[in-house]
Amino acid sequence: MSLLVVGSVAFDALETPSGRVERTLGGAATYFALAASFFAPVRLVGVVGDDFTSRDAAAFRGRRIDLRGLERARGKSFFWAGRYSDDLSSRVTLATELNVFADFQPKLPLAYRDSRYLFLANIQPTLQLSVLGQLRKRPRLVALDTMNYWIERTPVELRNTLRRTDVLMINDEETRQLAGRRNLLAAAEQILKMGPSTLVIKRGEFGAMMVSGKGVFSVPGYTLRDPRDPTGAGDAFAGGFMGALAASGRVNPDAFRRAIIYGSVLGSFAVERIGVERLRRLTRKEINARARELQRQVRFLL
Amino acid sequence: MSLLVVGSVAFDALETPSGRVERTLGGAATYFALAASFFAPVRLVGVVGDDFTSRDAAAFRGRRIDLRGLERARGKSFFWAGRYSDDLSSRVTLATELNVFADFQPKLPLAYRDSRYLFLANIQPTLQLSVLGQLRKRPRLVALDTMNYWIERTPVELRNTLRRTDVLMINDEETRQLAGRRNLLAAAEQILKMGPSTLVIKRGEFGAMMVSGKGVFSVPGYTLRDPRDPTGAGDAFAGGFMGALAASGRVNPDAFRRAIIYGSVLGSFAVERIGVERLRRLTRKEINARARELQRQVRFLL
Repeated sequence: MSLLVVGSVAFDALETPSGRVERTLGGAATYFALAASFFAPVRLVGVVGDDFTSRDAAAFRGRRIDLRGLERARGKSFFWAGRYSDDLSSRVTLATELNVFADFQPKLPLAYRDSRYLFLANIQPTLQLSVLGQLRKRPRLVALDTMNYWIERTPVELRNTLRRTDVLMINDEETRQLAGRRNLLAAAEQILKMGPSTLVIKRGEFGAMMVSGKGVFSVPGYTLRDPRDPTGAGDAFAGGFMGALAASGRVNPDAFRRAIIYGSVLGSFAVERIGVERLRRLTRKEINARARELQRQVRFLL
Repeated sequence: MSLLVVGSVAFDALETPSGRVERTLGGAATYFALAASFFAPVRLVGVVGDDFTSRDAAAFRGRRIDLRGLERARGKSFFWAGRYSDDLSSRVTLATELNVFADFQPKLPLAYRDSRYLFLANIQPTLQLSVLGQLRKRPRLVALDTMNYWIERTPVELRNTLRRTDVLMINDEETRQLAGRRNLLAAAEQILKMGPSTLVIKRGEFGAMMVSGKGVFSVPGYTLRDPRDPTGAGDAFAGGFMGALAASGRVNPDAFRRAIIYGSVLGSFAVERIGVERLRRLTRKEINARARELQRQVRFLL
């Protein structure tokens, strides 16, 4: 089924304990699309500047990623620079240069307007909402990411967008902040009153939790031997999740749980190398093997 | 099968966001014994002072807890006072008064010397080792807890004790500290070379991980709606774990995984009220219901 992602395509400068890069392809839509394309064809809407070359586009080539919605604008692409702590548990932003992304207005090509699965990566909530208006009919599933910045600065706009969202995918701190509640379950229940029928809480190395009217589903993190760069892990998670759902064509509880597993798997791979390097070299066989390993790691009999 | 615990019986003063108590029964062996007694008869070795009254002993009565090994000494019982942060994620120790516990030398009653399952709660490693010497034959399973204090101050003694240990049960920071490695898997593998064939890593609200030659088993935390006091949660976990193993009479991978689940369940209940209050009111029916709920929360199909 048709899967559309709207979000950033960017260049990142990354400083990690295991190395640094000055300029590498990044952005939420990039990580999402690479991850999701293992499962289903992906349509991408975003904007890049004239510094985005054919060599940069190579990351997308040979995959089921449709770039007709990737606008080229005059100027530089979105640039982000960050430095991670020794244990990768925290990071500082060294630079955020929005550049062409500052004036980004998502415009869906005609061919995208029948998309049935939609992921709205972390951008201004009103822009997220504007995407829904461009679709011919309501998608089967609308999933959304957001961040503390929008929770604090555009709460009304975010609430409007949430009312038309099926799945909200955020981390634990964002969950607590959005709900104004410390307890994660209480916070989740509060958020389920805002519109989303499902909340997916990403907890980094500690795994993920999904809360809906059907109850709680939890998966522990897949423990890595040599994690290197958490950049984009949440977007790779979202890509695995939405890709698996779009491929299955189902939106029942079993399909959602399975999607969380593939999200966890893609997120875990993303962390294994700096930037998108690991996702670029990943195979479907490796994905399946890790999903089965995760299954072996959590199974038990009472 | 006979299950023996050696460790502290104490009084605690607890300051938590949801209330404070000036003097309540605590100590590692107390939490362990209460939790384990739901599964198997428990023999307890510890020491209390003459301030330990029949009313204090009431917590153990009516349960399968043998107190013949609980020595009474002149003086005051071990006393610990602590204060938790608002989100319960950290605590400060306000007072540690060892009192009669300072001279504690574990002495096993004759009737205990055939014990087949042994849990050595967090005490000085040489004292832990001295218990093994008092048993008629090597137990079927020796499990051990320790802490940063012993890892730093008595590394040689701890290594000696670890060589005769089957299961080490510690938290993630202790795992990293003991192994001198940041990565949890690398640290676990290092520790498996020190003697234990199984490492159980307790991760608080994030669950638990078990690493052995048979691979990794992970369980996410059971998310509580209203956690109140983490004191003793790790010992209640150990009690559920060892109790389930002793009751099963098996030491195979499936039995270990099942034991981790019951450990998680007992740990989660311990946190629901201040001190041992929740464990005292707990029923086996509630334990089974939560174990099944945890199972429902983690099941998925690929």
